[in-house]
Amino acid sequence: MSLRIGKATIAMENAVTVSAFAAVGGKKEGEGPYGSRFDYIDTDDYFGQKSFELAESAMQGLALQNLIEKRKIEPAELSMIIGGDLLDQCIGTSFGISDFNIPFFGIYGACSTISEGLSMASLLTDSGASKICAAITSSHFCTAERQYRFPLEYGGQRTPTSQWTATASGAMTVELGSEPPFVRAVTVGTIVDKGITDANNMGAAMAPAAYSTISRFFADMGYSPENFDAIVTGDLGNVGSRLLCELFDRDGVNIREKHLDCGRMIFDQNGQDVHAGGSGCGCAASMLCGYFLPEIRAGRLKNILFAATGALLSPTSSQQGMSIPAISHLAWISNERGE
Amino acid sequence: MSLRIGKATIAMENAVTVSAFAAVGGKKEGEGPYGSRFDYIDTDDYFGQKSFELAESAMQGLALQNLIEKRKIEPAELSMIIGGDLLDQCIGTSFGISDFNIPFFGIYGACSTISEGLSMASLLTDSGASKICAAITSSHFCTAERQYRFPLEYGGQRTPTSQWTATASGAMTVELGSEPPFVRAVTVGTIVDKGITDANNMGAAMAPAAYSTISRFFADMGYSPENFDAIVTGDLGNVGSRLLCELFDRDGVNIREKHLDCGRMIFDQNGQDVHAGGSGCGCAASMLCGYFLPEIRAGRLKNILFAATGALLSPTSSQQGMSIPAISHLAWISNERGE
Repeated sequence: MSLRIGKATIAMENAVTVSAFAAVGGKKEGEGPYGSRFDYIDTDDYFGQKSFELAESAMQGLALQNLIEKRKIEPAELSMIIGGDLLDQCIGTSFGISDFNIPFFGIYGACSTISEGLSMASLLTDSGASKICAAITSSHFCTAERQYRFPLEYGGQRTPTSQWTATASGAMTVELGSEPPFVRAVTVGTIVDKGITDANNMGAAMAPAAYSTISRFFADMGYSPENFDAIVTGDLGNVGSRLLCELFDRDGVNIREKHLDCGRMIFDQNGQDVHAGGSGCGCAASMLCGYFLPEIRAGRLKNILFAATGALLSPTSSQQGMSIPAISHLAWISNERGE
Repeated sequence: MSLRIGKATIAMENAVTVSAFAAVGGKKEGEGPYGSRFDYIDTDDYFGQKSFELAESAMQGLALQNLIEKRKIEPAELSMIIGGDLLDQCIGTSFGISDFNIPFFGIYGACSTISEGLSMASLLTDSGASKICAAITSSHFCTAERQYRFPLEYGGQRTPTSQWTATASGAMTVELGSEPPFVRAVTVGTIVDKGITDANNMGAAMAPAAYSTISRFFADMGYSPENFDAIVTGDLGNVGSRLLCELFDRDGVNIREKHLDCGRMIFDQNGQDVHAGGSGCGCAASMLCGYFLPEIRAGRLKNILFAATGALLSPTSSQQGMSIPAISHLAWISNERGE
């Protein structure tokens, strides 16, 4: 039985492991600094489909297929899949995974989805409700632009604070086991809304949510940044990352040496024109599955906090002048099982 | 620790109870056969707001407020909230619950959301990950019409198979306890896609998903319809309900005497012009929280299967000619704790 610690943190009782992980990406992601870490890179971002929406679903199906092969199981051996994406009604996931015929819990956490999925998968694995659970998500630059901003053909100008939605998918299996990476605890995020209304400045909207959840974890567990090799956020980008560090400064806590942001890592910020960085569910998910989890398994990283952040706006809420609520879920992922 | 039985069914190890429940609805729902069962009925469906989207959020906030008062707790005593809705990016929930400052897992299951939320809440309660968990959802006729079909001002003609999205919200608290209703087991749904492409015939798209999950539960647990007072679906409506019974007929299983559908119950099908019945996340949720759970608590119903169904389409997927994937999650809710 999971042990609830403090307001929002739940520690695992059993050895919950991320037993396999797969990352799939588009052309630009393949050309980025971590391009070699992806299991598959598509050449034209269509993934053999005729629409961008179908491409996103195909990409997610490909990530799941890669995951199943790397875990060396048949699809039917998965107890359940937990997943979602940015598209209206999460169609990227529904159409991406339906052919696998696995019990499915759909989730929506915007770009925090992979943190939310990993958290839920860990909790359901720890309790015995699931034997092998897959967590999955995706994002696609072209579907996100069409839905949230403008169709690509419009050629809209991007603002300096805007971020580039990654065309990527990440998937992992969670189960009880004896090999790292282990999920040691999760912190369930609370919605934070600081009144930011600029839909081209997601980093500023999401930084307070990351701060809320990470500081909640420290308070609940009695840890500080010194206990971790890295404090990883999902897609705060340049603007949000600076804000996050400043929010911790106010508490006299310096996270600058430990903080990494997937949105700042996935693209080459000099050579690839992405303004404030990468974003999207697939950004954090592919960096987690392609880079961080392998590093922890290899022992090059011992303990990280992984806190993807999501902006819970919609085009409708933005057009109606509403602010941008944000949320961040956190998982403590470790090379060691712990006591 | 939860006991996994069969492919997709998880039985509770502990006495998981639905300790409180609240239902809020709009004017038409208040005039329906179960209008007196709602905790609050709004007079003009605006819930004091200036847009329908804000109205839906306000309605969900009101359901949560009613729930908290009926459970006689402070908001901060909730361990977490699990919720979602039909709106793009689930803004009904994000804006509806953010003021309560509770750890939140966002889910997306279309009109199966309340079944999914109740299932997850039960699993996380059974394991000790949550002490008092709220599950919540909503739908609003005017936001759903604008998003999925036409703005109301357009005055579009409705087809005979179309259903009327209920303006309603349901919320409940799940925790360990000794008083009924008890959640005895849940079955996690699998996406079913039989190729239906008519977005005005959701019942036909969803019936196979309900059949899949309910028959999975019977197979996993070794039960049959005789073991239950009622087999309740969410919003199959007249068309989908008939199809569900016919699908069971093929197996030689007669569910006609036990089958109830919230979509056929919530409106007066003679006096209220709703064509094939009610629909929407709020339809099943408000009927569960306003009618079925009180009936089970009072002992007038002993054992029911509650299987809300969701159509996982989006306007984009429909416009691109895609079929309608559907899913149904199931909870066995009982007046008795069991062995």
